[in-house]
Amino acid sequence: MSYTPFNAPILSGLLGDREMTACFSVRVEISAMALFEAALARAVAAAGLIPTEAGEAIAAACSRFEPDLERINAGTTRDGVAVPELVRQIRAAVGERHSRHVHFGATSQDVVDTSLTIRLKPVVARLKERLETIDKVMGELDRAFGRRPVEARTRMQLAMSITVADRLRNWRAPLRRHRQRLEALAPTLLCLQLGGAVGTREAFGARGDAVAARMGEILGLSVPPATWHSARDNIAEFASLLSLICGSLGKVGQDIALMAQNEIGEVRLSGTGGSSAMPHKQNPVRAEALVTLARFNATLLSGMHQSLVHEQERSGAAWTLEWMLLPQMCVAAGAATRTALDLLGSIERLGAEP
Amino acid sequence: MSYTPFNAPILSGLLGDREMTACFSVRVEISAMALFEAALARAVAAAGLIPTEAGEAIAAACSRFEPDLERINAGTTRDGVAVPELVRQIRAAVGERHSRHVHFGATSQDVVDTSLTIRLKPVVARLKERLETIDKVMGELDRAFGRRPVEARTRMQLAMSITVADRLRNWRAPLRRHRQRLEALAPTLLCLQLGGAVGTREAFGARGDAVAARMGEILGLSVPPATWHSARDNIAEFASLLSLICGSLGKVGQDIALMAQNEIGEVRLSGTGGSSAMPHKQNPVRAEALVTLARFNATLLSGMHQSLVHEQERSGAAWTLEWMLLPQMCVAAGAATRTALDLLGSIERLGAEP
Amino acid sequence: MSYTPFNAPILSGLLGDREMTACFSVRVEISAMALFEAALARAVAAAGLIPTEAGEAIAAACSRFEPDLERINAGTTRDGVAVPELVRQIRAAVGERHSRHVHFGATSQDVVDTSLTIRLKPVVARLKERLETIDKVMGELDRAFGRRPVEARTRMQLAMSITVADRLRNWRAPLRRHRQRLEALAPTLLCLQLGGAVGTREAFGARGDAVAARMGEILGLSVPPATWHSARDNIAEFASLLSLICGSLGKVGQDIALMAQNEIGEVRLSGTGGSSAMPHKQNPVRAEALVTLARFNATLLSGMHQSLVHEQERSGAAWTLEWMLLPQMCVAAGAATRTALDLLGSIERLGAEP
Amino acid sequence: MSYTPFNAPILSGLLGDREMTACFSVRVEISAMALFEAALARAVAAAGLIPTEAGEAIAAACSRFEPDLERINAGTTRDGVAVPELVRQIRAAVGERHSRHVHFGATSQDVVDTSLTIRLKPVVARLKERLETIDKVMGELDRAFGRRPVEARTRMQLAMSITVADRLRNWRAPLRRHRQRLEALAPTLLCLQLGGAVGTREAFGARGDAVAARMGEILGLSVPPATWHSARDNIAEFASLLSLICGSLGKVGQDIALMAQNEIGEVRLSGTGGSSAMPHKQNPVRAEALVTLARFNATLLSGMHQSLVHEQERSGAAWTLEWMLLPQMCVAAGAATRTALDLLGSIERLGAEP
Repeated sequence: MSYTPFNAPILSGLLGDREMTACFSVRVEISAMALFEAALARAVAAAGLIPTEAGEAIAAACSRFEPDLERINAGTTRDGVAVPELVRQIRAAVGERHSRHVHFGATSQDVVDTSLTIRLKPVVARLKERLETIDKVMGELDRAFGRRPVEARTRMQLAMSITVADRLRNWRAPLRRHRQRLEALAPTLLCLQLGGAVGTREAFGARGDAVAARMGEILGLSVPPATWHSARDNIAEFASLLSLICGSLGKVGQDIALMAQNEIGEVRLSGTGGSSAMPHKQNPVRAEALVTLARFNATLLSGMHQSLVHEQERSGAAWTLEWMLLPQMCVAAGAATRTALDLLGSIERLGAEP
Repeated sequence: MSYTPFNAPILSGLLGDREMTACFSVRVEISAMALFEAALARAVAAAGLIPTEAGEAIAAACSRFEPDLERINAGTTRDGVAVPELVRQIRAAVGERHSRHVHFGATSQDVVDTSLTIRLKPVVARLKERLETIDKVMGELDRAFGRRPVEARTRMQLAMSITVADRLRNWRAPLRRHRQRLEALAPTLLCLQLGGAVGTREAFGARGDAVAARMGEILGLSVPPATWHSARDNIAEFASLLSLICGSLGKVGQDIALMAQNEIGEVRLSGTGGSSAMPHKQNPVRAEALVTLARFNATLLSGMHQSLVHEQERSGAAWTLEWMLLPQMCVAAGAATRTALDLLGSIERLGAEP
Repeated sequence: MSYTPFNAPILSGLLGDREMTACFSVRVEISAMALFEAALARAVAAAGLIPTEAGEAIAAACSRFEPDLERINAGTTRDGVAVPELVRQIRAAVGERHSRHVHFGATSQDVVDTSLTIRLKPVVARLKERLETIDKVMGELDRAFGRRPVEARTRMQLAMSITVADRLRNWRAPLRRHRQRLEALAPTLLCLQLGGAVGTREAFGARGDAVAARMGEILGLSVPPATWHSARDNIAEFASLLSLICGSLGKVGQDIALMAQNEIGEVRLSGTGGSSAMPHKQNPVRAEALVTLARFNATLLSGMHQSLVHEQERSGAAWTLEWMLLPQMCVAAGAATRTALDLLGSIERLGAEP
Repeated sequence: MSYTPFNAPILSGLLGDREMTACFSVRVEISAMALFEAALARAVAAAGLIPTEAGEAIAAACSRFEPDLERINAGTTRDGVAVPELVRQIRAAVGERHSRHVHFGATSQDVVDTSLTIRLKPVVARLKERLETIDKVMGELDRAFGRRPVEARTRMQLAMSITVADRLRNWRAPLRRHRQRLEALAPTLLCLQLGGAVGTREAFGARGDAVAARMGEILGLSVPPATWHSARDNIAEFASLLSLICGSLGKVGQDIALMAQNEIGEVRLSGTGGSSAMPHKQNPVRAEALVTLARFNATLLSGMHQSLVHEQERSGAAWTLEWMLLPQMCVAAGAATRTALDLLGSIERLGAEP
């Protein structure tokens, strides 16, 4: 039991997900922030707001930027956000001549939010791929065991016989909808944040839209009609989807744990968990983990929606709460899809014994 | 402080919403259930599964059905769901000759879930209309006060001056997205549930799809490719949207409460709340209520997502939890949209004193 | 599915609790508020702050006070709290001569909070009694079936044989702790609120403590050293206990639902639920309801703790959120204890078939 | 924004707490597990259940045990819990002669739960100390600024003048109650877990109580009358307290953020946060962080209470959910107390300008 379930030396194999945690490593986070500053410099240079040469110098410095993390940590403690100290360091790296052009017209939230959406891109892509693979593996299980009988159970009581194919259909349908949801939500979620100090892009004068459009191209992000500093619905909606994904997989895990009960034996799993006291036991550990991860994200989701009450032009309190919850929800969704694949891959028999 | 915030004689004006609670009244609920049974009877008769005459007799009896609520309450206590007793009463109303054809091939969950989606139709419509009206009223505020200055504030500190129009833009954008979300979600949310005992429509033989299609036409509901007895993602997704709506309006309420602080005075409201101890006070009661309703739905949302872990073919525990939460979330979203309209309508001045 | 799970004509037998909902009826709420005003009048008269005669007249008027609920509802909508209008009505009932002495030195929150703790007294008493009765019934089950074997199961797999007595011990221990918790918490929870406009009892001058002490005697409430207008920890702590109670009973319900599975048959229940589609079924409806109620209170608890962020001397937003959650949590705990009794009383056999 | 808010290189200074995260480091966790195995070996040897020499050899091996963390991670992934692999490694360290006496009569949950309570001991101690220090610092603020006026505000509107002392009293009272709660709860929370495979201590025969008593002495933990494998109320109650602590401090943070508003200026803070876009700003970062941490723990608390539905003799799903939430809640409470001290220490003036 560690304070960081996802990367703890003990629990990370059970509850973590390497690909997802990689998206939220400090290295990747700082890189994404530097990408923002580089794109901004190139875009404001293209718009004639800073010298072309300055734009190039800043972009070059950002591409090889190495942060002093200790000072960034201290700066974050003081400022509540890493960006003021980060910008100071980038300015030093750029050198005196162009340093004043770094971070032109932007604010901390532009950097932090865009660095988030840059990193959510692979998160969304991984989840879509994994959901596809899960669907394929379920298709294989259907071909192998679909005609076998399984007992339908309602309210935990025997109802009547159905086939494994029937149950698989119920497992697959929501997962397919989640893939469609990921696709539908990606264009608005994976977008640029650029508002300047108070969300009005005032420093760019008439060139605000042009700067934003150019930055969107460079970063591969969509460009929303306005800033979303204090309108966090897209983020909260994505959190809901992360919880929906975990929830649907939690249902699969719960079903398999129930099917694996000794007296019922409607599934046979390989590589199940061992016990320190009872060597004969075969614990459906992965099935249980899916239930855990579903309840975890259902729990955290509430806090993401509390954060919608984001006062005025920027709420330190509400925004910071997002930081504490959303990355964990991404990793939990990653862990759930990974665990589901492991669990489904360990199924040696589904349905009644022949 | 009552156990039913929404219809309590004391609190309903503050926290309730008549149009929304009407959608969940017992009368409307029983009517919707009877509509289901009538549509089912007509559809199975059209499919040749029961005599045409029986279908007509059942539909007629359903249209004039008067429930014995006391016995339905007792039946629900015993069975965990109202339908077995309700069907008994409808059978009695139909009369001996056709009574055995009532509820042909259906199960309790078909009735309860379809009766819910029938009633969610006006809920979705009301929310869309109200969000439109709120947008219009904000447009009027924009015309009246949009050019006035207001202080942008970030992290609760003065940042720089913006206009009322800037702030209104931040309030309106998410509300417009919510209308699009309501539209996008309606076709899959407002759908028929028809699965029979275990979700496979086994009693209809080859006519299952035809029966479902006919029922969808009669009831004005879409017909999903499969049953969703145990796949509750559409319901949980709708709950998320109800919380998003309340959250975005809670942000407006929080902003107005902050603007109404005496030393700040960036808004003047009429009809504000009085105090029993301090007659001079003008409390921004509606603004506060919006914050309350946002935090309420953010809280309840967690339970709706816990319900996604819906075991096997039907979970009494998870399904019943939805019953305890979703209607309240609908009424809270109704109350928030209603309160927002009242609050915006009470604005006598927005932005700095001229 | 109604917007008020606890008193809905359909669901109240399954999910409600008459004794608990009675504690939160509008009649009882207004009575408790009138009790507060009567006690206040007598106490401030005893302290020489208003004429003795006025104190008597007010107490008499309060004892026969009949509210105009429609106007109280309208007043609450306007003021965010019922008290200003209620005081107006009590003043009218008292008559012109003494009316200005009504509500002397008090504020709305004093009335609402004290009216709550007055009503929590029977809530706490009922819960304690019910937990005792549950313990007794479990003791009877122990005597009847305690020596029978039952399979211990860990991680949903057979572990080794234990006795019914062993499992009952695990069910009973937390329920006994909850009774101790109720006892430990009662003295600080069931207390007077008296702070005046801003929590300092300024209107009472040097007689504040004397007034409070006298009111405590009259109302049978403890008298805390200070007001708790904005320090809501006692309320949130009680909410936690309501959730602990439901949670421990939810564990019992989950165990019984698992024991009642057909292939396992470790419990036989009478009066189980029927199905509209499958007449042979015996659904462990009450066991499931216990799980539902546990998850319901675990969900709502989060909002009660969000309310701890209660800004300044009184937060309309945070306080109103308590109103929407706490009474429901009380009724859910009532329903859980009632349902547990019904469920345990329906056990015909516990443990393996002899 | 990292997946581990508490130890992330960027955020740990703002949101983490070194003393608390130290209690949950992997090194300390494994040490606590080894302490359990050593105490068990000594206690079962004292009870004559294993040879004295074996007890000594095991205790000695545990005291110098160095884990192979990579294999423990892999084992945890497979078994859902670290203990089977850990015991394997301890057995190897003990050597063939006595290895079979390692972990005598215990089960994984005994090790994990006791290792938790061993580590909660310093958590509880730190929180008590910090709450005491906060009280002292508030006392100093009272002496320095207590007589100054401050405006009482109710429902975010000016009410009337009070003193700084009045407001401090409202801040301090709940924190004192939390210290009492920590003291009251410590004896039952900080206890041994020893149940064996299914909670009945069957392997110890008649010596179970003696073994437990001896282990309690060695480990400095209380010895509960029974195992609490599946009765998690003490853990959930402690989680509630962690949220109460954060909530009361969140109220202080919210108040200070409101007092620090430019137009209000009722507090002057040193070392406030800077902005990347607006150099003139002084952001009350620590005050906001207190609100964030309060909402964070209020969110996570819900999941801890969901875990009370802990099926049968051990629920992998519910137990693992505790692992994901409780340590984070401890660190958040630590961060809140630390941040409160920093914030209070940065107050240069409280109340109106003289």
